[in-house]
Amino acid sequence: MAWSPETGSLDFRTLHDAYRAGTLTPSAVIDAVYDRIAVRGPDPAWTTLIPREEALARAAALEASGEGPDALPLFGLPCGIKDNFDIAGYPTSEACRANERIAETTDPTVARLVAAGAIVVGKNNMDQFGMGLVGVRTDYGIPSCVFDPAYISGGSTSGGGVVVAAGLVSFALGGDAAGSGRVPAALNAIVGHKPTNGLIPFGISKAGMGASHTVLTLTVEDNVAALNTLVRHDPDDPLSLPEAEGFTLTVPPAPERFRFAVPSRESRLFAGDAAAEALFDAAIARLEAMGGTAVPFDYAPLHAAARMLYEDAFIARRYANLEETFRRCGDRFHPASREILASGARYSGADVFIAQYRLAGYRKYAMRIFEDADVMVTPTTPTTFTIAALEEKNIGRNAIMGSYTNFVNLMEFCALSVPNGFRPDGLAQGLMLIGPSFADNRLLGLGAAYHRALGLPMGATGHPLPVPAG
Amino acid sequence: MAWSPETGSLDFRTLHDAYRAGTLTPSAVIDAVYDRIAVRGPDPAWTTLIPREEALARAAALEASGEGPDALPLFGLPCGIKDNFDIAGYPTSEACRANERIAETTDPTVARLVAAGAIVVGKNNMDQFGMGLVGVRTDYGIPSCVFDPAYISGGSTSGGGVVVAAGLVSFALGGDAAGSGRVPAALNAIVGHKPTNGLIPFGISKAGMGASHTVLTLTVEDNVAALNTLVRHDPDDPLSLPEAEGFTLTVPPAPERFRFAVPSRESRLFAGDAAAEALFDAAIARLEAMGGTAVPFDYAPLHAAARMLYEDAFIARRYANLEETFRRCGDRFHPASREILASGARYSGADVFIAQYRLAGYRKYAMRIFEDADVMVTPTTPTTFTIAALEEKNIGRNAIMGSYTNFVNLMEFCALSVPNGFRPDGLAQGLMLIGPSFADNRLLGLGAAYHRALGLPMGATGHPLPVPAG
Repeated sequence: MAWSPETGSLDFRTLHDAYRAGTLTPSAVIDAVYDRIAVRGPDPAWTTLIPREEALARAAALEASGEGPDALPLFGLPCGIKDNFDIAGYPTSEACRANERIAETTDPTVARLVAAGAIVVGKNNMDQFGMGLVGVRTDYGIPSCVFDPAYISGGSTSGGGVVVAAGLVSFALGGDAAGSGRVPAALNAIVGHKPTNGLIPFGISKAGMGASHTVLTLTVEDNVAALNTLVRHDPDDPLSLPEAEGFTLTVPPAPERFRFAVPSRESRLFAGDAAAEALFDAAIARLEAMGGTAVPFDYAPLHAAARMLYEDAFIARRYANLEETFRRCGDRFHPASREILASGARYSGADVFIAQYRLAGYRKYAMRIFEDADVMVTPTTPTTFTIAALEEKNIGRNAIMGSYTNFVNLMEFCALSVPNGFRPDGLAQGLMLIGPSFADNRLLGLGAAYHRALGLPMGATGHPLPVPAG
Repeated sequence: MAWSPETGSLDFRTLHDAYRAGTLTPSAVIDAVYDRIAVRGPDPAWTTLIPREEALARAAALEASGEGPDALPLFGLPCGIKDNFDIAGYPTSEACRANERIAETTDPTVARLVAAGAIVVGKNNMDQFGMGLVGVRTDYGIPSCVFDPAYISGGSTSGGGVVVAAGLVSFALGGDAAGSGRVPAALNAIVGHKPTNGLIPFGISKAGMGASHTVLTLTVEDNVAALNTLVRHDPDDPLSLPEAEGFTLTVPPAPERFRFAVPSRESRLFAGDAAAEALFDAAIARLEAMGGTAVPFDYAPLHAAARMLYEDAFIARRYANLEETFRRCGDRFHPASREILASGARYSGADVFIAQYRLAGYRKYAMRIFEDADVMVTPTTPTTFTIAALEEKNIGRNAIMGSYTNFVNLMEFCALSVPNGFRPDGLAQGLMLIGPSFADNRLLGLGAAYHRALGLPMGATGHPLPVPAG
């Protein structure tokens, strides 16, 4: 079946197979991408589009280079970049107009993707300064879920989730501290992996404290390929781990038998969403059919830990990162961002040590769970909301969205969100696989097998998962 | 040679050999100990003495038990307990009169020592609330160095260092976060090991944040025997490590060849003390004669890290621990303790995250040093001071005393202080061996060999090191 410019899949496998076969060129893909974007019309998923001519010139240069997907793992793959990464000559706003400025240099993370062959198509909308799991905290219009324009896209990598799921790019670069990659992945039926802290350098800046880079993709295999171009040890970055040197993310075969820890029925959180609950029940049954044994545990301590990210002294870390920006233009922040960040200024040093001590207790609880299970499995989010519902009660409903994701990064765990099917109203939910540091590949192998077992199209593209290579 | 009640050594080996041979009984040792204490007269090393009759009754009970050193590793060993550990029925003050109260229960750590056969003789003076490396910050009189009454004993486990070095007990229980065990060990020519964080539970209280238990002894072997009764995993203690279960401290033979990282000559800190510098030069030569190769490194980043403990946001952790006490009786604290702790209230939550990020950079620097060396070796302290000099400039000179010790616990490393001989004026200095988490046994083996190579008497007892068992 020929690749259609209007709807042909942009997953890595499909494009790379066609590039290798000579049936498609990066230039043709970039042309198709810009045509699709034009057909879609004005779209708050983008804050900036790179001019078509520039992207086409880049594609032509790649074609002239004589290289291909074997040498360049992201060869000819169109991508979106979250608007908190700088691209020289283009605006960076972090979704706050008062903060908008033209970047003078390109972020080293973006540079690595480009060096690996990626073609940047544009910059994506986000929750301001990466604070939010909903996508509505922005000055650049609110991106919608690809399955229903009335519903949130999830965030903070909101635009990135939309453009991948809508089939406009092959992948999107984002971040994930609270759940900023996993949540939009879940709501748009795509894949987001938050790697083990320290695998991807953040750079020599206190902005790196507590953050994780992530990518959003249509498949687990694509996610691994994109992240692998970023995994490395940066000796000058205090939080970059030497163990990252030589570490490679992979998608191993799922084990024939495995144990998965799952929140006990009483401790599961769905905010009254019976359809989401049914999808999670189905996930457990599917994992059991795959050879898994469910090991229930009380989720309450981990929910308490998740709440600490924004409702305890850890918000002071965000304040530490953003203090200068807050002083400069805090009065022009989105009201929710302003209120949250202002709370970060109110915690004392003693509060932080007490919070960290309390977190250590919750982390110990989680580590005991991993002693008896290969992986922890939860919903990615309890439910989803309309954009109107968020506008009505922003902070409270955003907090509900982080009920499962928010503790992971605090505990320096890794986690993968894969699609988990659709509610009867057509809205997507995600399944999250969580593991301790350096358990990434275990999650990726199991998550890929789960995604295949689910058997649904990728994002809103209508395309089935491609058969994995090799 | 018969054991003399006036001067016979109280090291574990000597007492246990005599107990096994039947030439000595715990009762006779306790009688001798109380006689020695009486001869010494009023001594600010003690805040409380257990009545002789009670200690004798305990000795008699041990003798009647039919047990011995084989079943009880601390059988019949007299000990002192730092006055921040509770002993039911006796006062606990932490060296602050305003804080003095009669304890209702016995601290579990003390209970474990007693269960292992130790006989508590009294409670020891300290720097208030464990803040200080000098011993002068106390309401209970100032203990002196065993080698010169005009000089500081070191602290905060000040009394404990004195009573071990003076031959009044076999060991003393203390703590070591900044250097509170290692510094008095160094100044009184005895041994103090700060174990890897999480090996000894601190208990379920935020007071456990950042602290480490320690013991002071005459030999490395004694230190290991005492600490091993405390090493364990407490599942309810957030900072207690599961790896502690089954972990045993040992004194392995020193390797024939080893590499030791040592501060470059330009970056060494001696506060102008040429005699201390000469002792450190001699230590390097001695380590080289033992088969070591010196690997110089710039100490400045680790000195910067050391200073962060009291001169940056980490002091907020102490404030978090002591806030209630400070509110209750802070106006009656020692002026230095009051000033330091009050500074802990002034740091914001953001300050803590920024400080932790900075510390992570220094820790990474230290970890790189360990990649190329089996152990890091520094002086335990740059110099020592008279009590009068401390009274004159308390906080500044105390800070000098922590130049080498203060970064270790912050980085979750372990460190051992062993004697390093005497200046021409008869004052002792220590040598510190530092390693990453769980490198304890490497330090202990090398430290014991170094102590033997030094060939000097233990503390102020005049006794040579006993030949190790086995």
